[in-house]
Amino acid sequence: MSNSFGSRYRFTIFGQSHAPAIGVTIEGLPAGFAPDMEALGAFLARRAPGRGAWSTARKEADAPEFIAGLVDGHTCGAPVTAIIRNADARSADYDALRRVPRPGHADYAAFAKYGPGRDVAGGGQFSGRLTAPLCIAGGLALQLLAKEGVTVRARIASIGGETDPASMEKLLAEVKAAGDSVGGVIECVCDGVPAGLGEPMFGGMENRLAQALFAIPAVKGVEFGAGFQVGTMRGSENNDPFYYDENGAVRTRTNHHGGILGGITSGMPLVFRAAFKPTPSIGLEQDSVDLESRENVKLTVQGRHDPCIVPRAVPCVEAAAAVALYDALLESRC
Amino acid sequence: MSNSFGSRYRFTIFGQSHAPAIGVTIEGLPAGFAPDMEALGAFLARRAPGRGAWSTARKEADAPEFIAGLVDGHTCGAPVTAIIRNADARSADYDALRRVPRPGHADYAAFAKYGPGRDVAGGGQFSGRLTAPLCIAGGLALQLLAKEGVTVRARIASIGGETDPASMEKLLAEVKAAGDSVGGVIECVCDGVPAGLGEPMFGGMENRLAQALFAIPAVKGVEFGAGFQVGTMRGSENNDPFYYDENGAVRTRTNHHGGILGGITSGMPLVFRAAFKPTPSIGLEQDSVDLESRENVKLTVQGRHDPCIVPRAVPCVEAAAAVALYDALLESRC
Amino acid sequence: MSNSFGSRYRFTIFGQSHAPAIGVTIEGLPAGFAPDMEALGAFLARRAPGRGAWSTARKEADAPEFIAGLVDGHTCGAPVTAIIRNADARSADYDALRRVPRPGHADYAAFAKYGPGRDVAGGGQFSGRLTAPLCIAGGLALQLLAKEGVTVRARIASIGGETDPASMEKLLAEVKAAGDSVGGVIECVCDGVPAGLGEPMFGGMENRLAQALFAIPAVKGVEFGAGFQVGTMRGSENNDPFYYDENGAVRTRTNHHGGILGGITSGMPLVFRAAFKPTPSIGLEQDSVDLESRENVKLTVQGRHDPCIVPRAVPCVEAAAAVALYDALLESRC
Amino acid sequence: MSNSFGSRYRFTIFGQSHAPAIGVTIEGLPAGFAPDMEALGAFLARRAPGRGAWSTARKEADAPEFIAGLVDGHTCGAPVTAIIRNADARSADYDALRRVPRPGHADYAAFAKYGPGRDVAGGGQFSGRLTAPLCIAGGLALQLLAKEGVTVRARIASIGGETDPASMEKLLAEVKAAGDSVGGVIECVCDGVPAGLGEPMFGGMENRLAQALFAIPAVKGVEFGAGFQVGTMRGSENNDPFYYDENGAVRTRTNHHGGILGGITSGMPLVFRAAFKPTPSIGLEQDSVDLESRENVKLTVQGRHDPCIVPRAVPCVEAAAAVALYDALLESRC
Repeated sequence: MSNSFGSRYRFTIFGQSHAPAIGVTIEGLPAGFAPDMEALGAFLARRAPGRGAWSTARKEADAPEFIAGLVDGHTCGAPVTAIIRNADARSADYDALRRVPRPGHADYAAFAKYGPGRDVAGGGQFSGRLTAPLCIAGGLALQLLAKEGVTVRARIASIGGETDPASMEKLLAEVKAAGDSVGGVIECVCDGVPAGLGEPMFGGMENRLAQALFAIPAVKGVEFGAGFQVGTMRGSENNDPFYYDENGAVRTRTNHHGGILGGITSGMPLVFRAAFKPTPSIGLEQDSVDLESRENVKLTVQGRHDPCIVPRAVPCVEAAAAVALYDALLESRC
Repeated sequence: MSNSFGSRYRFTIFGQSHAPAIGVTIEGLPAGFAPDMEALGAFLARRAPGRGAWSTARKEADAPEFIAGLVDGHTCGAPVTAIIRNADARSADYDALRRVPRPGHADYAAFAKYGPGRDVAGGGQFSGRLTAPLCIAGGLALQLLAKEGVTVRARIASIGGETDPASMEKLLAEVKAAGDSVGGVIECVCDGVPAGLGEPMFGGMENRLAQALFAIPAVKGVEFGAGFQVGTMRGSENNDPFYYDENGAVRTRTNHHGGILGGITSGMPLVFRAAFKPTPSIGLEQDSVDLESRENVKLTVQGRHDPCIVPRAVPCVEAAAAVALYDALLESRC
Repeated sequence: MSNSFGSRYRFTIFGQSHAPAIGVTIEGLPAGFAPDMEALGAFLARRAPGRGAWSTARKEADAPEFIAGLVDGHTCGAPVTAIIRNADARSADYDALRRVPRPGHADYAAFAKYGPGRDVAGGGQFSGRLTAPLCIAGGLALQLLAKEGVTVRARIASIGGETDPASMEKLLAEVKAAGDSVGGVIECVCDGVPAGLGEPMFGGMENRLAQALFAIPAVKGVEFGAGFQVGTMRGSENNDPFYYDENGAVRTRTNHHGGILGGITSGMPLVFRAAFKPTPSIGLEQDSVDLESRENVKLTVQGRHDPCIVPRAVPCVEAAAAVALYDALLESRC
Repeated sequence: MSNSFGSRYRFTIFGQSHAPAIGVTIEGLPAGFAPDMEALGAFLARRAPGRGAWSTARKEADAPEFIAGLVDGHTCGAPVTAIIRNADARSADYDALRRVPRPGHADYAAFAKYGPGRDVAGGGQFSGRLTAPLCIAGGLALQLLAKEGVTVRARIASIGGETDPASMEKLLAEVKAAGDSVGGVIECVCDGVPAGLGEPMFGGMENRLAQALFAIPAVKGVEFGAGFQVGTMRGSENNDPFYYDENGAVRTRTNHHGGILGGITSGMPLVFRAAFKPTPSIGLEQDSVDLESRENVKLTVQGRHDPCIVPRAVPCVEAAAAVALYDALLESRC
């Protein structure tokens, strides 16, 4: 169903922003694997709020508690479940949200789907906080991929169109001061990916990666290799010529295909980008509707919010890539 | 597995470019549905080759034969299977391909995955010809969606960066004359989509549509609503304000979200774009490798090929959208 | 994967006998449903140990804690996760088990699959304790089925071949005194099941119910309606004649088919039986092997154990029936 | 969905008794596998009608045509599709069936599910003829299992309670002369199955085998090892003691567990039985209803029918076992 991903490395995410806990159950971890909990904690810390100048002040105690699947620190073959308790109390701040959906958020769509009983507090199950369990599944997959020589590294490609760090910082300060927010693009490169992962058609690596990436709130576009640029290119320019390198391996001289041909990895670095929309929570007054009185109303979202979620989304992109890659890697063995 | 799509409207595609047949088995069609075969034929004709000035000369008799699931022209509850016989004979043209992968094609990735026994003729299971069965599943879904008031219409947004038809035609003529090819972008708009389709996280409409779209060979990017533009926008600009329209329906004044919020349809038109790479088969000499002799070699792809697959891909995009939408529509009922 | 069941009412069970917790995540519960927690507790209590004369003395605090999916006591559309903390400490009792598999238990099969790192404490993930989360998923499904007029009632059909309660009690006392155990059969009847649930072939109600029932440890046979008796019957005897009852409903005069024809419910009561093997843990000395020293050894299983698990398995059978039925009911709506 | 089985060896069956064709699409066959078509034909011939004294006179040209997935007689990695054309014409014989459901058949359940548009001819998608594609998928799995040293052999355990061939023959003659039919039991033994196949809970080998077996029309019960006998046994009797054999392999002295413990294979022979109900088509007058006039009516089923389907079901049981085993074998590798 919708909260589950993968076939051989399969996990199910649960929780809401203000439920007692959020968490994940992972099937498919090999028995006898001892997760590096320190490395996992460091990975999770990269997406935690309250660390950077631009992140929200909400304190998340993102230390996962492993309640199942481990014996003396190693996996035993049973599904692994980790939970993170939600420390923050459900507050009255969110009562107005029951009536007035925030523009750019999932509030109205959730109302259309689930009706008045939906969880509005902090965005409920649509909260970006649910990327924490994704990062648990992804963090463990990254450790397993590393054992196979596969590395996954994402970075901020641009924020608001700016591509150098200094300009990004300046822009973020301006945007924050204006009570506004801004979007950006994250690029991810996976090295050491063996050729032959993924399958044709709906099981292609592009399909799987897109399925994982669009689960991260705010992603509105995904592209591989040259991406949307291919729409302006000639075949003679876009085709990546093959050659044998000095080790006798087949490589391509360019990598417009982003490491994927026909849905299957080519052995070249896997390269993709995801576009993130601006944080929908802004300090400015916006137009909305009151779902009870059925009137048009004005809304000003309260609380402090990241002016840009892109910095915290970098590990989420790595996590999404890792779960898709590790799942395909396991599949390729049978 | 990889040749199957959907949960409630579920289909499995089979066949290769030069197998005796290609086809599709569809589960989830409502019993008692009488497909409009003429409309389906017209829909399939839009992707068939040999019709336009820029399409390949290969003749496809794309008339599907329904070998299961219909009784007196209507569905009976059993899975529906339609096949299309492959008229063209497997020819000697493809023997060289076993040794020398074509740049930009799946040839090398298929070799890495399946070994020397892969089907190289016409691209085997990676051939664009496999979009014909996708269009059968999609064509039927379009008819069922129309009964629900949902329309799906794709169009060429650009070819080689050109957005007006006259310039596109001119460019295609130039590219063809040069033995080259060119990519493009297709935009699709779905009207009448009810609010509340799709699910959170991995079952979101963006995830599902992307999974379907990346199954079309040559797609290297998918974006929704404002798409990659969101990376340069402010929240105050990108957020779509809600209002009640004159019929008391909740609408947004702009549609940067492309009809999807939190993975769930908002009731606004669903809008997305897919980027298509240039046809990898070009008439120019290219660098490649000989997988047997393990030497670098030159390759000139024989035969006639579309200088641009975008015109024929338009119905494929509609088909991909239709299967994802109809599947989500069925799911929303339980 | 293997710890998940269902398509529209889908749940994943996690935990081991001596992990910090066991639990279940359920997707597909309708939004706005307020579970009757008292009724659920009473249902769970029926399978809890330490209540009857024949059950083990281990105290289970089987009160589930709902950590996700509920808002103010009702479902909100998000997956529901409930956990049960394991109070009992992991003890030294189980160290010998790492070397010597208990006959009749999963110990050796688990070793063959997961290697030495498997969880041996209390049977790990193979423990009968894992039927508690099954009963949470089943208990909620029972409440939802009741709203639709469907009831599910299981009962002990026989223990050690005895079919009247007095003889069963006498036998259990004898068996317990002898340090032995005994098997039995549970019969389940589901009333109010609408005709038309289930699907042909692999999605038939028999297939689904069997898939759920064989997940209960100790089940070695499942039969529907006349079951294995059909092997001795004539068609003229086994065929159930149709007739219109006084309300104009189609019924059958007998119910050898157990409410299922062609995998699909007929509207008659759904009837099935499951055979349970004797508790494998017995107080008598048994032959086994030492997986380290690779020698044949004698083993006497320590601790107190139910001489028969059948009494406590009755609610588990109801839970298995409920999840399969409710899942099929949801499916039948799309 | 319901016509599909398996996760890594996954196939989808399509067709109806009197559709133009029946068939199957199989994903998961290893690339480079050359099916022994003669052996497959011989295997299919064992279930074909018109061969034995007790089988129906309908001639089935059960020679499968492979329309996809093979290149020069070997698999290429693409899904394999085989079809069998239905030679028999849809006849007027079946018109009455639209109104009057046959007792013991799926007719009424199909009406309840699909409405008047269901395919009644020859039982439509519920026909025993659909076991032919199951036998194609199973026949190929048997060949692949044989390469791994796994053999699957089913046999008639009893017909109408008779267990010796002479008594069975006599009984069949009597039953046929009386215009009646009779049920029976088939036993299957799988040798060479490695320990460690299957997974806990819902993915256990019993669950998978039961899911496959109940897809064969007429199966009403499935049991493993000692099966329903376990309900009358003591633990000291049912537990199978472990020992090291002369080759240093762990074995059990008895095999009441039927080769499966905790859902996972133990390395002992896998043993199970399936109960088949009597052929529901009999020559005697039966009570039924007219679904149009809504009256109780008498029905005499026309045509010739097997007095017992058990002899022809033997290869179907082997096929069901083979697909479940081979799927689990592939899964165990990742």
